[in-house]
Amino acid sequence: MTYDLSLDAVEQARARIAPYVRHTPLLAPPQLRGELPPQLRLKLENLQVTGSFKARGVFNTLLQLDEDARARGVIAASGGNHGAALAYGAWRLGVPATVFLPAAASADRVARIATWGARVVKHGAVWDEAHAQALAHAAETGQAYVHPFDADRTLAGQGTLGLELLDDVPELDCVLIAIGGGGLIAGMAAAIKQRRPNARIVGVEPTGAAAMRYAIESGRVAPLPEVRTFADTLAPRAVSERTLTLTRRYVDEIVTVSDAQMLAAMRWLWADCNQLVEPAGAAVIAALQSGAADVSRHAHPVALICGGNAAVEGVFAAYQPR
Amino acid sequence: MTYDLSLDAVEQARARIAPYVRHTPLLAPPQLRGELPPQLRLKLENLQVTGSFKARGVFNTLLQLDEDARARGVIAASGGNHGAALAYGAWRLGVPATVFLPAAASADRVARIATWGARVVKHGAVWDEAHAQALAHAAETGQAYVHPFDADRTLAGQGTLGLELLDDVPELDCVLIAIGGGGLIAGMAAAIKQRRPNARIVGVEPTGAAAMRYAIESGRVAPLPEVRTFADTLAPRAVSERTLTLTRRYVDEIVTVSDAQMLAAMRWLWADCNQLVEPAGAAVIAALQSGAADVSRHAHPVALICGGNAAVEGVFAAYQPR
Repeated sequence: MTYDLSLDAVEQARARIAPYVRHTPLLAPPQLRGELPPQLRLKLENLQVTGSFKARGVFNTLLQLDEDARARGVIAASGGNHGAALAYGAWRLGVPATVFLPAAASADRVARIATWGARVVKHGAVWDEAHAQALAHAAETGQAYVHPFDADRTLAGQGTLGLELLDDVPELDCVLIAIGGGGLIAGMAAAIKQRRPNARIVGVEPTGAAAMRYAIESGRVAPLPEVRTFADTLAPRAVSERTLTLTRRYVDEIVTVSDAQMLAAMRWLWADCNQLVEPAGAAVIAALQSGAADVSRHAHPVALICGGNAAVEGVFAAYQPR
Repeated sequence: MTYDLSLDAVEQARARIAPYVRHTPLLAPPQLRGELPPQLRLKLENLQVTGSFKARGVFNTLLQLDEDARARGVIAASGGNHGAALAYGAWRLGVPATVFLPAAASADRVARIATWGARVVKHGAVWDEAHAQALAHAAETGQAYVHPFDADRTLAGQGTLGLELLDDVPELDCVLIAIGGGGLIAGMAAAIKQRRPNARIVGVEPTGAAAMRYAIESGRVAPLPEVRTFADTLAPRAVSERTLTLTRRYVDEIVTVSDAQMLAAMRWLWADCNQLVEPAGAAVIAALQSGAADVSRHAHPVALICGGNAAVEGVFAAYQPR
């Protein structure tokens, strides 16, 4: 029997994490400029606690650790949204946390994680090196390593967003979802398709980091020869067996977008929807604006805005109290 | 009989503008840091079209102009949210618009208005001078001048946000609302109190631009001797007879916040709620964090986030496509 994610696991996750996460809002039309289909709605998961969907998988994982494991603590490798979600979740539940980051991680990112009391360890030049060191540290200390996408509990947690969206839009017939390591789309697609087999699921990857399309074309999980995008939260070199298997089964189509298209979409989201988001959060809008994806034939399409953590420190610095 | 705003006028406005504005979302707990009462909800009116509540009053005004008046066009004086809302509303309805700005208005602000095809005229050093010139121009051309807060149709339009909030939170027992010229709080308070007399309405002004408190203490509308705040959208020198009268009748309390408190609240809204807003949008949070307002005894309090148009251009410039 091949790997699957059961609706039951996602439903249990949803009940488990409900006290700790937000039911995020749906932004209704009208859109201002009419560039996008007027029936399109945006699911603002960038308003989730810590600014991305990652909190769902993290809470679903931490809440299933037994008392001993909680006392020993948890580990992750991520300078991005997963690291921040883990640090917050651990703080919220009183679990010690260590987050490994590549040495080049910005001061902002370190601060975002450290603000929740997590221990930050810088190691290696890139994520893969920080990840390897984090795994070694976990093996040594007996602490639980929380993977950003390649773990059943993480996938069930991200899947809760699919069930929530079906509650928001019972007639959902199409949803656009960005792909990094594939945890979000795999979890959501599994949940949605098991409830509503005819809903169309469209994945969106950066042209310069299309790891899922590469895996599908290669017929196996394999690292990309090169990664080139400013959408750092969509830029792992490889997806995983779990996310590839679920994507093959449940996702209808994958399209790609350039950095320039994501930047234009970031501007549109600010100008027309007053949402400032990171490039990953704008990828689905870029897919629509560029014509890579077309939802005009659908009556109830949704674009999932997956994360909002843009680099904004300069904005506050420009406001001088008088 | 003294001036009042009827519930009937607000209900008619709501039906009139419904196709043109968004029903904005409510952000539920949990808040991350626990600094604010856990039952507090945020009404994200910063997600309204053009980023603030101003679109409500503008559409309620423009939609009541007859065909001749629409053909002649409309005028406003505002470099801020009212100007942008008027420009958008006029574009949406095919009405020519002219917006007067003080000469020092930033290129960003001019662009935000000009993007909708409005004619931009720079005149004078401060808003009052641009306003006087706009009035003169309106008298000369027979075009309709759309006041940002001192007009019945504007007030009825802003009042629709009160009715919408009562639909969102039928048990509403307290709401915090920022005060600039007073149009928002006057309209909302009139609508809410006529439906729900026991709901407590708290106004929030910048310490350096507390024009409403000054008018109440003076017993009449009078310009502030000095205005000193970075919250430019809360900084008219004087409120109006209409807004003063309604505020006296329907608002329970007015508190003030400093610029530094608003800046801290802007940071909190970004870090804990992923909403980037202008100082005015953060004023109600500042009132809670500073202790100026206390909603802990209320079961269903709401903080109204009235506008989101922070100066963010630098954020996009920092993202370089790869």
